[in-house]
Amino acid sequence: MTELNQPISGNDLARFSGPTTFMRLPLAHSLDGLDVAILGVPMDIGTSWRSGARFAPKEIRNQSAAIRPYNLTTGDAPFDTHNIADIGDLAINTYSLPDTLRIVEESFEAILAGSDVVPVALGGDQSITLPILRAMSRKHGPVAVIHVDARSDSSEATFGERDTGGTVFRRAQEEGLVDAEKVYQIGLRGTGETATELKDAQGWGFQHFLASELWNRSLAGLGAEIRRDIGGRPVYLSFDISALDPAFAPGTGAPEIGGLTSMQMLELIRALKGVNLVGCDMVEVAPAYDPTGTTSLVAANLVYEMLCILPQQSDTAE
Amino acid sequence: MTELNQPISGNDLARFSGPTTFMRLPLAHSLDGLDVAILGVPMDIGTSWRSGARFAPKEIRNQSAAIRPYNLTTGDAPFDTHNIADIGDLAINTYSLPDTLRIVEESFEAILAGSDVVPVALGGDQSITLPILRAMSRKHGPVAVIHVDARSDSSEATFGERDTGGTVFRRAQEEGLVDAEKVYQIGLRGTGETATELKDAQGWGFQHFLASELWNRSLAGLGAEIRRDIGGRPVYLSFDISALDPAFAPGTGAPEIGGLTSMQMLELIRALKGVNLVGCDMVEVAPAYDPTGTTSLVAANLVYEMLCILPQQSDTAE
Amino acid sequence: MTELNQPISGNDLARFSGPTTFMRLPLAHSLDGLDVAILGVPMDIGTSWRSGARFAPKEIRNQSAAIRPYNLTTGDAPFDTHNIADIGDLAINTYSLPDTLRIVEESFEAILAGSDVVPVALGGDQSITLPILRAMSRKHGPVAVIHVDARSDSSEATFGERDTGGTVFRRAQEEGLVDAEKVYQIGLRGTGETATELKDAQGWGFQHFLASELWNRSLAGLGAEIRRDIGGRPVYLSFDISALDPAFAPGTGAPEIGGLTSMQMLELIRALKGVNLVGCDMVEVAPAYDPTGTTSLVAANLVYEMLCILPQQSDTAE
Amino acid sequence: MTELNQPISGNDLARFSGPTTFMRLPLAHSLDGLDVAILGVPMDIGTSWRSGARFAPKEIRNQSAAIRPYNLTTGDAPFDTHNIADIGDLAINTYSLPDTLRIVEESFEAILAGSDVVPVALGGDQSITLPILRAMSRKHGPVAVIHVDARSDSSEATFGERDTGGTVFRRAQEEGLVDAEKVYQIGLRGTGETATELKDAQGWGFQHFLASELWNRSLAGLGAEIRRDIGGRPVYLSFDISALDPAFAPGTGAPEIGGLTSMQMLELIRALKGVNLVGCDMVEVAPAYDPTGTTSLVAANLVYEMLCILPQQSDTAE
Amino acid sequence: MTELNQPISGNDLARFSGPTTFMRLPLAHSLDGLDVAILGVPMDIGTSWRSGARFAPKEIRNQSAAIRPYNLTTGDAPFDTHNIADIGDLAINTYSLPDTLRIVEESFEAILAGSDVVPVALGGDQSITLPILRAMSRKHGPVAVIHVDARSDSSEATFGERDTGGTVFRRAQEEGLVDAEKVYQIGLRGTGETATELKDAQGWGFQHFLASELWNRSLAGLGAEIRRDIGGRPVYLSFDISALDPAFAPGTGAPEIGGLTSMQMLELIRALKGVNLVGCDMVEVAPAYDPTGTTSLVAANLVYEMLCILPQQSDTAE
Amino acid sequence: MTELNQPISGNDLARFSGPTTFMRLPLAHSLDGLDVAILGVPMDIGTSWRSGARFAPKEIRNQSAAIRPYNLTTGDAPFDTHNIADIGDLAINTYSLPDTLRIVEESFEAILAGSDVVPVALGGDQSITLPILRAMSRKHGPVAVIHVDARSDSSEATFGERDTGGTVFRRAQEEGLVDAEKVYQIGLRGTGETATELKDAQGWGFQHFLASELWNRSLAGLGAEIRRDIGGRPVYLSFDISALDPAFAPGTGAPEIGGLTSMQMLELIRALKGVNLVGCDMVEVAPAYDPTGTTSLVAANLVYEMLCILPQQSDTAE
Repeated sequence: MTELNQPISGNDLARFSGPTTFMRLPLAHSLDGLDVAILGVPMDIGTSWRSGARFAPKEIRNQSAAIRPYNLTTGDAPFDTHNIADIGDLAINTYSLPDTLRIVEESFEAILAGSDVVPVALGGDQSITLPILRAMSRKHGPVAVIHVDARSDSSEATFGERDTGGTVFRRAQEEGLVDAEKVYQIGLRGTGETATELKDAQGWGFQHFLASELWNRSLAGLGAEIRRDIGGRPVYLSFDISALDPAFAPGTGAPEIGGLTSMQMLELIRALKGVNLVGCDMVEVAPAYDPTGTTSLVAANLVYEMLCILPQQSDTAE
Repeated sequence: MTELNQPISGNDLARFSGPTTFMRLPLAHSLDGLDVAILGVPMDIGTSWRSGARFAPKEIRNQSAAIRPYNLTTGDAPFDTHNIADIGDLAINTYSLPDTLRIVEESFEAILAGSDVVPVALGGDQSITLPILRAMSRKHGPVAVIHVDARSDSSEATFGERDTGGTVFRRAQEEGLVDAEKVYQIGLRGTGETATELKDAQGWGFQHFLASELWNRSLAGLGAEIRRDIGGRPVYLSFDISALDPAFAPGTGAPEIGGLTSMQMLELIRALKGVNLVGCDMVEVAPAYDPTGTTSLVAANLVYEMLCILPQQSDTAE
Repeated sequence: MTELNQPISGNDLARFSGPTTFMRLPLAHSLDGLDVAILGVPMDIGTSWRSGARFAPKEIRNQSAAIRPYNLTTGDAPFDTHNIADIGDLAINTYSLPDTLRIVEESFEAILAGSDVVPVALGGDQSITLPILRAMSRKHGPVAVIHVDARSDSSEATFGERDTGGTVFRRAQEEGLVDAEKVYQIGLRGTGETATELKDAQGWGFQHFLASELWNRSLAGLGAEIRRDIGGRPVYLSFDISALDPAFAPGTGAPEIGGLTSMQMLELIRALKGVNLVGCDMVEVAPAYDPTGTTSLVAANLVYEMLCILPQQSDTAE
Repeated sequence: MTELNQPISGNDLARFSGPTTFMRLPLAHSLDGLDVAILGVPMDIGTSWRSGARFAPKEIRNQSAAIRPYNLTTGDAPFDTHNIADIGDLAINTYSLPDTLRIVEESFEAILAGSDVVPVALGGDQSITLPILRAMSRKHGPVAVIHVDARSDSSEATFGERDTGGTVFRRAQEEGLVDAEKVYQIGLRGTGETATELKDAQGWGFQHFLASELWNRSLAGLGAEIRRDIGGRPVYLSFDISALDPAFAPGTGAPEIGGLTSMQMLELIRALKGVNLVGCDMVEVAPAYDPTGTTSLVAANLVYEMLCILPQQSDTAE
Repeated sequence: MTELNQPISGNDLARFSGPTTFMRLPLAHSLDGLDVAILGVPMDIGTSWRSGARFAPKEIRNQSAAIRPYNLTTGDAPFDTHNIADIGDLAINTYSLPDTLRIVEESFEAILAGSDVVPVALGGDQSITLPILRAMSRKHGPVAVIHVDARSDSSEATFGERDTGGTVFRRAQEEGLVDAEKVYQIGLRGTGETATELKDAQGWGFQHFLASELWNRSLAGLGAEIRRDIGGRPVYLSFDISALDPAFAPGTGAPEIGGLTSMQMLELIRALKGVNLVGCDMVEVAPAYDPTGTTSLVAANLVYEMLCILPQQSDTAE
Repeated sequence: MTELNQPISGNDLARFSGPTTFMRLPLAHSLDGLDVAILGVPMDIGTSWRSGARFAPKEIRNQSAAIRPYNLTTGDAPFDTHNIADIGDLAINTYSLPDTLRIVEESFEAILAGSDVVPVALGGDQSITLPILRAMSRKHGPVAVIHVDARSDSSEATFGERDTGGTVFRRAQEEGLVDAEKVYQIGLRGTGETATELKDAQGWGFQHFLASELWNRSLAGLGAEIRRDIGGRPVYLSFDISALDPAFAPGTGAPEIGGLTSMQMLELIRALKGVNLVGCDMVEVAPAYDPTGTTSLVAANLVYEMLCILPQQSDTAE
């Protein structure tokens, strides 16, 4: 058996130094032997309010240098069971949203075609999720989706554009990329352009969990409920950091007050352990609005927690 | 029937552009036909710790550009039922607190005398509330007051001055501007110059709700209880952003730890729906201490939530 | 004679309040009677490094509130001789650079077709200058251009895209929009992808003034020289704030060290008085990287100085 | 009876002025007559991630100027019952961690030898706690310790160094400075270099309270439980500000998400009233990462709350 | 001979610790034996744009901790020849500008009446200079004034108020506090409410030095020229930090581009050595707009340079 | 001939993505075939005022991603003539200054022993220069040193420690590491603990260039003069970013006003072309005090300019 990649230890090299890959993992140039590939999708031209998510992969990786391999709360040890690497960034076209989405789609298709690696994308804005789902559904068929976000991103179009951060899940539904009854949107709140903005998605079968229903509650229960409801289906987890309240994650493209807490996010992800996760993303971190680095730190840790719940080879092999 | 003012849609003009009125509403030069008038009172010379609230109206309006007309959580649609405009800023005298308070009082008197408009003031520091209450009581008699704040602002005097941010509610009580048994002070905490600082106000009948009694609780219940206790009385809502914990609203003149959360504030305001709100203010936002804009964003959203609970003409007409 | 628009005086309304138009001028809904129209072009999707210029029109206007009407150094009094208004922002498409450039071009064409107004654009990134020049040349023929910038923006293409912030002046030359021998690029410095990056433009006749040749010198002489060289030709002034050293203007999309100073910029613009200015822009201010507001303040003042050198009706009428 | 030291009143001198001692108390040059001595230990060379705690004593004192003498929530009045002074900063050696730790140890030994004063240390990083415990145990024997922190700081060594911020409590246990069964570590979470990082300490008898077990709960109960468990033993309280979630305290050397709230910290400290507190510290505040000052404000208030629970002479005299 | 006060050495106590008096000098409670008294005047209610100078004394002192006693460039050693102390802050009334100005006047009168101490005031906004000049002229008769500032502060009134930051020098002239032909205003620039804003002051005899005439020049010559022109007259130096360009001093109440440099300020002050300085102030530092602390650092160093040019007892004794 | 390493082009991968090596050069694991090795020395425990330089290598590299390979001003093309790589960070001991200095010395000795590579160190604080000079002198004998700094760093000891950031050049002189008459200290200014602080170094033969003698001057002349004076001697260039004025480089451990400009630094380095540079460092960048990233950007560009003047193999081979 080949040795599994390990983060550089803080005892070997001070944490403020060394490579700025995720958790100072090796940078892999091939998918061979990998179980999980972390990659950056640095772009922000699909966002409608504050730009800046193009620098998110860099900052999330910077903050991830403080994370150690063992999860002291859950006992998880992702690097003891999975071979995980950072595979760098996609070479997007920063001047064209359609071209960038095409590059994302083709890149994910290539990743998924040649391996069983689980891709974990560091966005970028939410618009990257549509091309990822296109690639995902080609491999897995319509997938279940756990979408943690302040908004349902189910608009018809914005400024006449059909593929943006605000339209991802309507397109995904129209194109049959998702199993609509197994789409869970968690953390919804705020205001809309129309009174019925959430109704369409509910009509397709999407399950909505408003932030206001979740305040002051542990999300362990909700996570467990979703896990049971999904069963063994392949599931994609898309995490827009604006799901969190701006007290916990101010550095995002469109902060929305009355959100969830970091603690709830940890509870939720941990409770999902056991689902058949086939891919994840962490989107909408905007470092320019994050003077203390807290938002990138939260994002880095939530990505780490995703690694902790990835299905093990033994789980999925038979 | 005249058409109601509407915020500019994000589909017509990108949210980062356009006028910087509240929510990009029309700027009205007359009160004719208005139900609600939002106005700025840009001053900060009544504050005893960190100045800067003079820029609050500008920043609250800046952040309000991200708010859409429909409340996705409550279903409220304030612009479908009320004619709301931004009427700009009062021309205060930035060198004189007494003169500024006189200008505020006369301006509010003029607004209230000529119309049934509900004024919503964007402060400025807390000292603006006393002249507003003077104008209010002249129209409505002694009003009920819901005062959300870290402090009771009921001192006798500070530096020998009787009308400052710290003395508002003692003066209001002495002058008979308020119905003392229907004054609710919510979020109180911190430290005082004397051991009995809260006792006087309690003696007048003010109802005190310490932050420490509210932690980890939904405020929906408290809001409902207050709503029932007030009944149909005219009520003024004064909201000092320092009621919130600095994690949620760091950008304020005198932050105090152990405060309330944004979620609790949304619960509280929503639960007040149905009270006979005759005016509101949002005070003590200090943008210079708010590097991420979160505090102004919270303030803008809470003002929006106030618009959502304004009594409808049909409610109050008969 | 109609009265000329005037900024709101600081004696009438404290400078930290009031409308956030440029210098608190009236917001005009028509070009009738205007000599100068200031407008925002809020976009940033044509930039290759730090995004955020979409918020520049808002912040430049915010900072402009501190500017008074009379230029105490030069004696200029632009509001005594010109009718100047802020006409708001263009409704760009934030998801599409080509569509945004089309909107800019058509909008400027409409402005120029129906009036002799001089448009002053608050960008946005440098890519807006190409469509503006297209509209300009349609009215005036090939124009002289004074381009103050750290870079010549004369690349062939970037990521295969031909119309971006980095290609403006090559396209302008190819399309015959400019009088190549009367294109002055001032402040050039830094590094390039190729050794010959500046050579092509020099071959077309562009006149290059490297920052390193200008350090520690007054630019009054250079300005006078350019003014004489241009003579009466229609001239467009495009000002990329990255021309300045980051000590003076840190808040920009692609800061470059070793730049010019604010003082030199004032000298340069003032020395240009008398040229036949037919339009101007101020681009690449990125407020998210400008924690003290200095960059927006510089930009606002340089726009004011541009207003001070606009040709007077009497100059150009006969 | 001598008069007790009092903070300067905000009515005598505006809070933004005056000395920058803790709460503007007198600066004492001798321990005579003091019950409590607040002192700074400005150093940060024992930290492994973000340095900067050397400026913490200065900033905590700056923020403490806003605190008034009377605790409005609990009724406590520490300055009515204790003689409290700020005794300034220790003269540490900023280039040598071992020498600095020696200075801390000797200084505390001197303080404790000559008086019954309770020292309250403003760190500095966590490494100062080991020499303080050495001095404490020499006077009191092995002490009970309430250690509020994100981490147990019980490593064997880091980079071969045995006395650093990360090894304090292993050393304290080895050296017999603490009563291991009465060591309470509260707020633990995050990740470790090994899977068993918390096991050793638990083996020694340390009582661990993971943050994840405390989320969404009042800590009044936990505090009461610990108080009963400790009984009359001398107890030292070490408070690493990273115990708090970065939403509440971003400005720290090694922020860790999923932490405790300011409200919980107030509950915990208040519930400890009655324990025989013989010393306290507040460590790991890093002002350079605290742009709004909130972290220092939290630290200053928690130190104030510690003053509120100090045993009274009458309690301990007999 | 009594020993002269000395700053605490950085070899005795790390510079990031110790008292926050100016340069860590002793805090004096009496003027006895002092040659120079540094005092804070923490207020900002006389400013018309960005408030916040109330925190300037605190921050200037914080930054001054990095200054050592010997001037390596000039060889000056102010603490070898003068007895200098920090005497703390004036107890101003933060709610009333007139009352604060009265307190400043009376305090300075008391200082000057009882001693020959040279007061060096750390403002606060520029409005403090008028009451100081009133006290000065009572002792010294009309004084010469070197006023370094972006603005001449010679308005008639603002908002009807006659004593504000903007009217100081008109009042001083009207009241005969200054020797008008020996008033030097250095660094003037920017814009005015009227075209003739500088003309009145020039009519009184004030000597104006526009920033634009000083760019790219050493100010050693100007300083020498002023020194000769003043001769032995008592001279007051008022230094508004906005004289500097915002690149060098962004943290001020009303930044103005095109200003002077720190280097020019050092040249100017050093060249003034030998004038009969009877008092100085440093005003308009606004720490909330100074995220790197540079502005306070500049202010602290310029105050130190003022100490270096104070007349020696031997110079003035006979 | 082997191919020379090249930075990743901005046309291949957007500049905000990709590896965070210096200029996105390859990360080399061996020195084979390299002419130049850029390496990080991330530490800050030798600094006496503001810590934080431990994060400098990371941030300098982050900012270097914006630099392109060709120097448009000088025509230099370092990657066409030298094989340059980033070799990562040294594994220092963050708890021990002596041990860290030992590691630096041994690491440089190993680098220099096995190759003719020119090392370019990204500090870290100034204390790293002493062990580097020890290693340098072992290979080259006493070297000439160009030391650009606000301070001469020639103290005897601080807090009894002999090897710190403040003592480097006294030690270097004592140990015979440098050719004292060929030590050029440029940019000196500020204040000292003693009146004679610069005298000792001048006595050893060090050549001092005070900042005040250089203001408003091109440094091209000084650079040329030094180049001639040095001749073919091996020369080490140590660059403390505090040489620059804080307007140009605020983010440093001990900012000092009245410094040099970025333009002067470019002039100086460019004029040194032709000296026999055997090593360089860039020290004292403190990112936590650099909110706009400008200081790291300046540092990155100055390092790039150093690469542009490195001797070519052909120059030094014979």
